[in-house]
Amino acid sequence: SGLVHIKNPHLDLMEEDILYHLDLGTKTHNLPAMFGDIKFVCVGGSPNRMRAFAQLLQRELGLAAVGQEMQNICAGSDRYAMYRAGPVLSVSHGMGIPSISIMLHELIKLLHHAKCQDVTIIRIGTSGGLGIEAGSVVITDTAVDSSFQPRFEQMVLDDVVVRSTELDKDLAEELLACSREMPDFPTLIGHTMCTYDFYEGQGRLDGALCSFSSEKKLQYLRRAYDAGVRNIEMESTAFAALCGLCGLKGELNKTQACFRRP
Amino acid sequence: SGLVHIKNPHLDLMEEDILYHLDLGTKTHNLPAMFGDIKFVCVGGSPNRMRAFAQLLQRELGLAAVGQEMQNICAGSDRYAMYRAGPVLSVSHGMGIPSISIMLHELIKLLHHAKCQDVTIIRIGTSGGLGIEAGSVVITDTAVDSSFQPRFEQMVLDDVVVRSTELDKDLAEELLACSREMPDFPTLIGHTMCTYDFYEGQGRLDGALCSFSSEKKLQYLRRAYDAGVRNIEMESTAFAALCGLCGLKGELNKTQACFRRP
Repeated sequence: SGLVHIKNPHLDLMEEDILYHLDLGTKTHNLPAMFGDIKFVCVGGSPNRMRAFAQLLQRELGLAAVGQEMQNICAGSDRYAMYRAGPVLSVSHGMGIPSISIMLHELIKLLHHAKCQDVTIIRIGTSGGLGIEAGSVVITDTAVDSSFQPRFEQMVLDDVVVRSTELDKDLAEELLACSREMPDFPTLIGHTMCTYDFYEGQGRLDGALCSFSSEKKLQYLRRAYDAGVRNIEMESTAFAALCGLCGLKGELNKTQACFRRP
Repeated sequence: SGLVHIKNPHLDLMEEDILYHLDLGTKTHNLPAMFGDIKFVCVGGSPNRMRAFAQLLQRELGLAAVGQEMQNICAGSDRYAMYRAGPVLSVSHGMGIPSISIMLHELIKLLHHAKCQDVTIIRIGTSGGLGIEAGSVVITDTAVDSSFQPRFEQMVLDDVVVRSTELDKDLAEELLACSREMPDFPTLIGHTMCTYDFYEGQGRLDGALCSFSSEKKLQYLRRAYDAGVRNIEMESTAFAALCGLCGLKGELNKTQACFRRP
C-alpha cells in the first residue's frame, strides 16, 4: 500500500502519541493535515544546513515568496530542526547513531500517523571520502560497520539484535542518473562505513586520545577501501536498518547520499 | 600539576590544531587568554538549557549586567553551543555517546592548549529515573553499560578497547553535601546506566519498533535497579572514560549529576 508501517503493537493501545524530541503529538497537532502529502524526507546532521537545503528547494520548486522566512516546525524543541518545502521535509538529526535513532523513531511515527504514502528518505549529510576525489558525492548501496560488515547491532534491553543495512539499489541507480545532470560533482556508488566515534574510530591522529601509528591507520583505511568502502560517517547503519524495518521503503526507495568534506 | 593532559603523541607534531566542531583553533584564537582561568565545565545535551544555565550562573555570581546577552563562543558552528560565566564554561553536547565524544575530544584539547589547571567537569543533563521520586537528582558514582557493567567499549579502528567508567567518589560526596542546602530536590548517589538507544535500548513501549512485552521491560528495569542503577541516560560511560583518561581529573574531581525528567 506504500504506507509507512510501525512494528510496535503497544502503539495502538495508546491514547496519545507524543513525539517528545520533535515537539509534536497526535492530540496537539493534526498530523495528517500537516504532513499527509509528504513524499520525500531529506535528513542531515546540521540544523543550519537543513534550513539552507529547504530554502534551496523552495527556490528550485518555485514555492518561495521573496524574503520569506523558513518556519522551523520543531521550534519548540532544540533537539532537532524540521523545515518543509512542498512535498519535501528537511530534518536535522545531530551527530551519531543514538541521535539519528531518536529522530527516526519519531519521524517514522509522524509519517505513520499522518498516513503518508510512498515516502523516499535520503540522508544528505557530511562524510569523509576514502580514496576518492575531494568534493565527490557517494551514493550508498550498503552501509557497513567498522568491521566492514553490512549489519547494525542494536541493543534491545540487554540483548544484541543484528539488523540488515541494505539500501535500495534502484533508488541508488536513479540518483546516479540524476547526478549526470550535475557535472560539477563527481558521483559514485559505494559502501559507506558507519562508526561510533569521529577520532579514534575513524583513524584520525588529532583527537585528545590516539594510541595508533600513522601506518596502522593507513592499513585500516586500505582494508576498508578494499572491502568497498568509499566514505565514512556516523549514522548510516542505523538509518538503513531502522528505515528498512519500518516500511519506510514505500517501494524500497531509500538510499543515502553523502557529500565528502572538501 | 593539575594540568589537563592529552594522550596523543601526534598532537605535538602538528603546527595547528583546529577544533572543527567548536569553531576554535590554536592559530585563530588565543586559547590561554580566552580560557586559561576556567575551573569548571558543566555539560548537558540541549543548547538552550546550557545557555539558561550560564545565565543563572551569571546572576548567582553577580556577573551579569542587566539585560546582557550571553555570547555563544561557538557561534560559528551549529554542532555545539558554549557559554561562559566567570570561571565556568557551559557547553552543550547533543544526544548520545558519539555526539558527546566529539565534543569532549575537542573540549579536552581546548583546556590543554589553554593550560587550564584543576578543572572539574560535571554533566547536568536529563535522565530517566529508576525507582526514585520524580524530580530527584542522581549524583553518579559509577557509569554502567546496558549489562550493568562499569565499562565503556570503545572501537579504536576495528579493535574493541575496554575503558573504566569510575567517577570521583569525593566529588560525589561534595555535591551531595551541597544538595543539603536545596531541600526542594531529593538527591542521592547511585549508578547511572548509559544506553545507545532511547526507545528499544531503555525499554520504552512507544518507539516505532518494539518487540518486547511490558513484563519483559519491567524485568529488565528491575534487574537494573537491583544492580544499583538509579537513572538512565545516553552519555555517561563515554563521559567517565574519556575525562578519566585525559587527566581531566585534576584531582579526580568529576562526576555527573543527572536530573530526572519530571
